Amino acid sequence: MKKITIGLLGFGTVGCGVASILINNRYDINTRTNTDLSIKKALVRNLLKERPYCEGIQLSDNPDDIIKDPDIDIVVEVMGGIEPARSLILAALNNGKNVVTANKDLLAVHGYELFATAEENGRDLYFEASVAGGVPIISAIRQSFTANKISSLIGIINGTTNYILSAMTDQGRDFSDVLLEAQEMGYAEADPTSDVEGLDAARKLAILSSLAFNTRVTFNDVFSEGISKVSPADIKYAEELGCVIKLLAIAKNQDDGIEARVHPALLPKEHPLATVNGVYNAIFVVGDAVGETMFYGKGAGSLPTGSAVVSDIVEIVRNMTAGSEGSLNCNCYRNYPIKSADSFTTGYYIRLKVKDEPRVFATLALFFAEAGISFNSIIQKPRSNKNAEIVLVTHPCKEGQLRQALDSLNSYSKLDKIYNVIRLETNEI
Amino acid sequence: MKKITIGLLGFGTVGCGVASILINNRYDINTRTNTDLSIKKALVRNLLKERPYCEGIQLSDNPDDIIKDPDIDIVVEVMGGIEPARSLILAALNNGKNVVTANKDLLAVHGYELFATAEENGRDLYFEASVAGGVPIISAIRQSFTANKISSLIGIINGTTNYILSAMTDQGRDFSDVLLEAQEMGYAEADPTSDVEGLDAARKLAILSSLAFNTRVTFNDVFSEGISKVSPADIKYAEELGCVIKLLAIAKNQDDGIEARVHPALLPKEHPLATVNGVYNAIFVVGDAVGETMFYGKGAGSLPTGSAVVSDIVEIVRNMTAGSEGSLNCNCYRNYPIKSADSFTTGYYIRLKVKDEPRVFATLALFFAEAGISFNSIIQKPRSNKNAEIVLVTHPCKEGQLRQALDSLNSYSKLDKIYNVIRLETNEI
Repeated sequence: MKKITIGLLGFGTVGCGVASILINNRYDINTRTNTDLSIKKALVRNLLKERPYCEGIQLSDNPDDIIKDPDIDIVVEVMGGIEPARSLILAALNNGKNVVTANKDLLAVHGYELFATAEENGRDLYFEASVAGGVPIISAIRQSFTANKISSLIGIINGTTNYILSAMTDQGRDFSDVLLEAQEMGYAEADPTSDVEGLDAARKLAILSSLAFNTRVTFNDVFSEGISKVSPADIKYAEELGCVIKLLAIAKNQDDGIEARVHPALLPKEHPLATVNGVYNAIFVVGDAVGETMFYGKGAGSLPTGSAVVSDIVEIVRNMTAGSEGSLNCNCYRNYPIKSADSFTTGYYIRLKVKDEPRVFATLALFFAEAGISFNSIIQKPRSNKNAEIVLVTHPCKEGQLRQALDSLNSYSKLDKIYNVIRLETNEI
Repeated sequence: MKKITIGLLGFGTVGCGVASILINNRYDINTRTNTDLSIKKALVRNLLKERPYCEGIQLSDNPDDIIKDPDIDIVVEVMGGIEPARSLILAALNNGKNVVTANKDLLAVHGYELFATAEENGRDLYFEASVAGGVPIISAIRQSFTANKISSLIGIINGTTNYILSAMTDQGRDFSDVLLEAQEMGYAEADPTSDVEGLDAARKLAILSSLAFNTRVTFNDVFSEGISKVSPADIKYAEELGCVIKLLAIAKNQDDGIEARVHPALLPKEHPLATVNGVYNAIFVVGDAVGETMFYGKGAGSLPTGSAVVSDIVEIVRNMTAGSEGSLNCNCYRNYPIKSADSFTTGYYIRLKVKDEPRVFATLALFFAEAGISFNSIIQKPRSNKNAEIVLVTHPCKEGQLRQALDSLNSYSKLDKIYNVIRLETNEI
């Protein structure tokens, strides 16, 4: 059996998951790959910290011990963050190592440079764990769907926000209340900005849409809006409208370019993504040959992410055995323009409060008519005070049209308040 | 660009799908693989029949024209059936061709021989299209989940029965009525036995469980029971119990062996498979590292199945470029025993009619108690005549225990009729 040696950059949650899988499933993994796989070294910050699954692994706080070790065939970067991860991966590739990374932050910004370096060196750079750990969506797009032109993908790819929205939906609780609980349970970080504002999902969407459309999409190309303004009232109205509210990551390949956006959206209950709850992730992909497909699983966690890292290691081992490393790297042979937010066409849910007087509804209907927007549904409930809460759901329109209607509304003396404006995702059903 | 030449054995629905994808997405597929892929010849029964997408393809009714053509690198078997498909695939492999097949009937029975022949010849034998066409479940198990010990998989892998059960559920219609409609719409064959009796799903389950557990499971090892006895009344009671009725294909790796069974089952509505309706397929897989995952898509049809065939062709092309054909074939390095039906442990739903008299319920409860079976739920509705319809749902028990209780019931003078006995699938939630 050929011996394959691995070096870890980082030995935190994911590194530990990788080590435990390689120990616990050693017989199966070695038999399946016909190789003897083991971790030789791991880069850590604190050499003295107690850690599980580190028996037989040399710990070091000097990255050179790993990326320059001639014994090491595969470097696994699970430290996260941009630097020093970027420099270390580049150095490892330049030193002839194959690399596995779980680092979405890095790939979403510096992916191009990393893949170019891998290609120059004829090495593999694999990254299944960077998006939705337990869901093998990267290999599905890169390998299983090679026959297809992918027209769109919609993902629930941030577990924190999906956990929060699921709990708000099930229990009718407030955003801030559930966020606090999620932080206590370790589902949300102390600074939750990246998850809650959709930035984490935007990074993952940049990676997925580059792969799906064979064109370069980076973090800055993705429009993103978070979930902090979603209220239990919105969720209840959505329910009445036959929808759930999810933080969706949506990418579409359209005639005028690539649309890539992350935002909360009303999604019809019949959509396969609508029942994806809690910390689960799922990605709904539409290809011209395969039709509608969906992939579902855990998005994070030591073992699911470790499973993705080890599947990448195994792929690289197979390539090493065949001598075919470097054959499946960046494949951005298209150069599509990226659409800006004002050209997105979606339906909108608008919840507002107006004076409950004659002519008021007619006037606000006129504002939308003047902007060329028509309605899909309207909810107005009887109220006891002098204000009426109204929910308007529009047919798809351009963001510019909506802004015109909202501007008219905002300058209208009978308007009390616009509570919220949330997009609707219905096209793909 | 390297030229890769394909020969088709069969040019029906799937062959046509393959040809159309290779024409319509030619630029993308060739760029992604850096090769020039084309179909040179196709084996057909009727040379004179008009067919779309056959331009530039030489039609022949002599298989030797394809399997002995030295230009042809990859033979794609999409003719179906056991013979002559088996002999032709063996001959193609022995002639040094790589092979893609969509033939579940053949693989579920003769898989071992075919893979052994591929291995002897150092050739690839790929078969993504043999199970759930649009769902890349084969590569998910073989590649994405290599890090895992898979403990179970549950699939909805027969579109015909899922269409029938979905329509019965949505519209409250009878089995035979919906079957007729499905036949008219082309969703069910003139002789529906293979689909309706669960044989088709059993063949696919044999393939999936061999891969998932690395042990040999063939069609004869799979217990199967069809859906023809499921009635609208059962579906309605299931609904009351918070369940749907689906034809499930279930495989579990247990301490005492492999359990592989296909049968209708009550499945709780919260299960991710419960919302898989119509002709869609889905497979729910549990691995020790990755946790619960699900893959969803179209199970059949010209283009979804064609997409799977072309993804296999592309994988083989990548292997050919690397010179690594024959590295990912049969991997049955385990030799687990196969469990027989009497050792299955499941819950049961039993719908029966008894005389509505004192002591009757106590007596039948005693029959179950004597067999060591306890109840999960009981439904008895007020009736106008002298008989009472009762639904009993048991906690998991062995099939032998259930048989004992049913024997006692059957010899009980107050029993009017046992309408139906259906298993319950709840363990995996």
